[in-house]
Amino acid sequence: MRVYDLINNKKHGGQLSDEEIKFLIDGYVKGDIPDYQMSAMLMAIYFKGMNLSETTALTRAMVESGETIDLSFIDGIKVDKHSTGGVGDKTSLVLLPLMALCGLKVSKMSGRGLGHTGGTIDKLESIPGFNVNLDRDEMFYIVEKFGFAISGQTLDLVPADKKLYALRDVTATVDNLSLIASSIMSKKIASGADIILLDVKVGSGAFMKNVDDAVQLAEMMVSIGKSFGRKVGIVLSNMEEPLGFAVGNSLEVIEAVKTLSNEGPEDFTTLCVFLNATMLKLSGICDTLEEGLEKTKALLKTDDPFLKFVDFVYAQKGDTTYIKDLTKFEKSKYAYKVISTSEGYIKTIDAEKIGLCSLVAGAGRATKEEEIDHTAGVILHKKVGDQVAFGDALGVIYTNKSDEKEALTESFYEAFGFSSEPVRKNNVIIGMVDDHGFIDMRK
Amino acid sequence: MRVYDLINNKKHGGQLSDEEIKFLIDGYVKGDIPDYQMSAMLMAIYFKGMNLSETTALTRAMVESGETIDLSFIDGIKVDKHSTGGVGDKTSLVLLPLMALCGLKVSKMSGRGLGHTGGTIDKLESIPGFNVNLDRDEMFYIVEKFGFAISGQTLDLVPADKKLYALRDVTATVDNLSLIASSIMSKKIASGADIILLDVKVGSGAFMKNVDDAVQLAEMMVSIGKSFGRKVGIVLSNMEEPLGFAVGNSLEVIEAVKTLSNEGPEDFTTLCVFLNATMLKLSGICDTLEEGLEKTKALLKTDDPFLKFVDFVYAQKGDTTYIKDLTKFEKSKYAYKVISTSEGYIKTIDAEKIGLCSLVAGAGRATKEEEIDHTAGVILHKKVGDQVAFGDALGVIYTNKSDEKEALTESFYEAFGFSSEPVRKNNVIIGMVDDHGFIDMRK
Repeated sequence: MRVYDLINNKKHGGQLSDEEIKFLIDGYVKGDIPDYQMSAMLMAIYFKGMNLSETTALTRAMVESGETIDLSFIDGIKVDKHSTGGVGDKTSLVLLPLMALCGLKVSKMSGRGLGHTGGTIDKLESIPGFNVNLDRDEMFYIVEKFGFAISGQTLDLVPADKKLYALRDVTATVDNLSLIASSIMSKKIASGADIILLDVKVGSGAFMKNVDDAVQLAEMMVSIGKSFGRKVGIVLSNMEEPLGFAVGNSLEVIEAVKTLSNEGPEDFTTLCVFLNATMLKLSGICDTLEEGLEKTKALLKTDDPFLKFVDFVYAQKGDTTYIKDLTKFEKSKYAYKVISTSEGYIKTIDAEKIGLCSLVAGAGRATKEEEIDHTAGVILHKKVGDQVAFGDALGVIYTNKSDEKEALTESFYEAFGFSSEPVRKNNVIIGMVDDHGFIDMRK
Repeated sequence: MRVYDLINNKKHGGQLSDEEIKFLIDGYVKGDIPDYQMSAMLMAIYFKGMNLSETTALTRAMVESGETIDLSFIDGIKVDKHSTGGVGDKTSLVLLPLMALCGLKVSKMSGRGLGHTGGTIDKLESIPGFNVNLDRDEMFYIVEKFGFAISGQTLDLVPADKKLYALRDVTATVDNLSLIASSIMSKKIASGADIILLDVKVGSGAFMKNVDDAVQLAEMMVSIGKSFGRKVGIVLSNMEEPLGFAVGNSLEVIEAVKTLSNEGPEDFTTLCVFLNATMLKLSGICDTLEEGLEKTKALLKTDDPFLKFVDFVYAQKGDTTYIKDLTKFEKSKYAYKVISTSEGYIKTIDAEKIGLCSLVAGAGRATKEEEIDHTAGVILHKKVGDQVAFGDALGVIYTNKSDEKEALTESFYEAFGFSSEPVRKNNVIIGMVDDHGFIDMRK
């Protein structure tokens, strides 16, 4: 088998066999196949695509490239949750306590942020003492005892994805549905859960810019899951504007804790409730989505979600006094208020621009090596559809940088679009995809 | 400027600016841009193409990547000739003496063969003593004195092409018109001639499989030449079957010498006459193509072309007694005659298959390091359109390999297609392309 022939075949729109895909991935991980041949192949795949059978074979070869986790000795229904990444997306911090309270077991591997979207691990590290480096035994112990745990990726899961993603990232070959699907699904399958809930973000601030592509991606991932014997449910949610009000590490933890006490932003609360209800139906705990929604809403009216989160922080060695008194979180030195010089209605809030503004303020990394500032970020005061007058605050930028006021304020303001006519609020839930296809939920 | 953005732009069908192309080529030659980004770019170019302005900028950046040759201190009209590569293509050996006799000056850099097509340098080395490593002064001296010289490429002309071609060769990105055009033209422009005659081969044995692509390539190269102030004329010639009867190094030299004495194969003689006539018109020595054809035919009836070739071999230190007595050329140990088991008419002779058979017999290299056997090759006894009976010889394979008889004979035979109906001979001349576009000359 020659790599040249495989590239040439794909270039002409041919289908790669399971053996050929296995040969490619194994050879690439071992270093027998050089980056320059793989990047030509990736670009050919970008143009000619892969069908479901190829995408499944690619996922399998990637899963088999490294370790896999066996969760079978944890009792109960093992589930996992993943978001394709958005701005202000602190969903895991709320959803995992809810799922655990419903009896599900979640052993979640999570990543750090890169670029304009944040990472759950970075957010949790804004809680003093919080330990994100759990070994396998610690992790399983906490999951057994408290229902869920979140850890940085310490095991060598899917090394093929790490190597391939790094190459895709510098060769403009990230945005292909099969490559995205196999990257996401290989990690979820290697992580061992029986039921996988995926939150696919759609909109200007997300990978997936439109609903059609997102549905195609979702259907692909459901099918891949099936061929591995995993149940996959997918929610498509809106990322035209940031989720909630807070963007930035400790700012998002604070907003998540408030949401667990049923005092969170409307859009973010709606998404968390919907995701939990979807999981309850997927896992058979509830018979219908409606039942799941009712159960979750009722749960949020109790103290249990907040207390479950406190337990979780305690289990992972974080200082729980910060959770009980949110004012304890360290604040940034500067808070730059951004004032509206327009009036009317907010038409758009570009999530990517807000994410980048927060990154520049210190909340994120442009390169892997950068340190992040847990106090930095932005708080929106307005959302799409809100009315604004001259002089109203659109939001506040939190930073420790004294010399970036003008640039930050300008980039924040540029994220906003205004309209003189009333504008409808965004529906956070776009729809869902499962075995039976796409259900469109936009009103 | 970031390579990533350039790849992404080309991937989405955008046009690269002159500065961007210069940045890419300079960075790649220096090693600042890694192979894996360039191969992704090449694959994006394969799918999205380059327009004429981009292709010209690419050619310019490649020319500027290394040395260029200044021929201005050679008197007279400096011309160059290049073939895109075919099987049995010994055209330079006949055409250069003809052009020199007409008063043109040809300082030709030539390459070695790789794959199923041979190289002029390898052919010349089958003449004992022949020196293909001329330095610049020797080369210019011989051109001044004898009208032409042929040398292996010793100067660092177009290093960008060497590096890019090696990458294209292993990433299935050779077959793009802009990449082919810039590769050919950059080398010809760096070589310094004012007038460039290109023989673009078309057919199953060539790069260009069909006339439409070849015309597009030719028009592109004429336009590129113009923007460098060079006159370019292009002949499209047939490569559905091997050119002439002989394929293999000394076998081709012998056939070329016979052709210089007007005793060559019909198709090969026709092509050489046509190419020389085209050059006479391009250079203004003749007013019309017809005049050029008459002049060349008349020339071939004299001893002059043969004597010019003897002078040339003498000037480059080859043993001229071999040219005067062709039987002196060493012969291979084995000569396997291939007998027809069909009857009727020869419909096709797959040039690529004949080229590969000759290569396996020892005449070529599969990798750059292989030694070649100058005595090996094949002589066809039949051409397309010829009638054959059972038991007729289709050709003879010359080799020093004792253990390949069956495999060689089989691969030779497989190159032939038969028909029970009479078949028209191939027209060796398909047409020509100059400033005024394509002139179709197929009858």
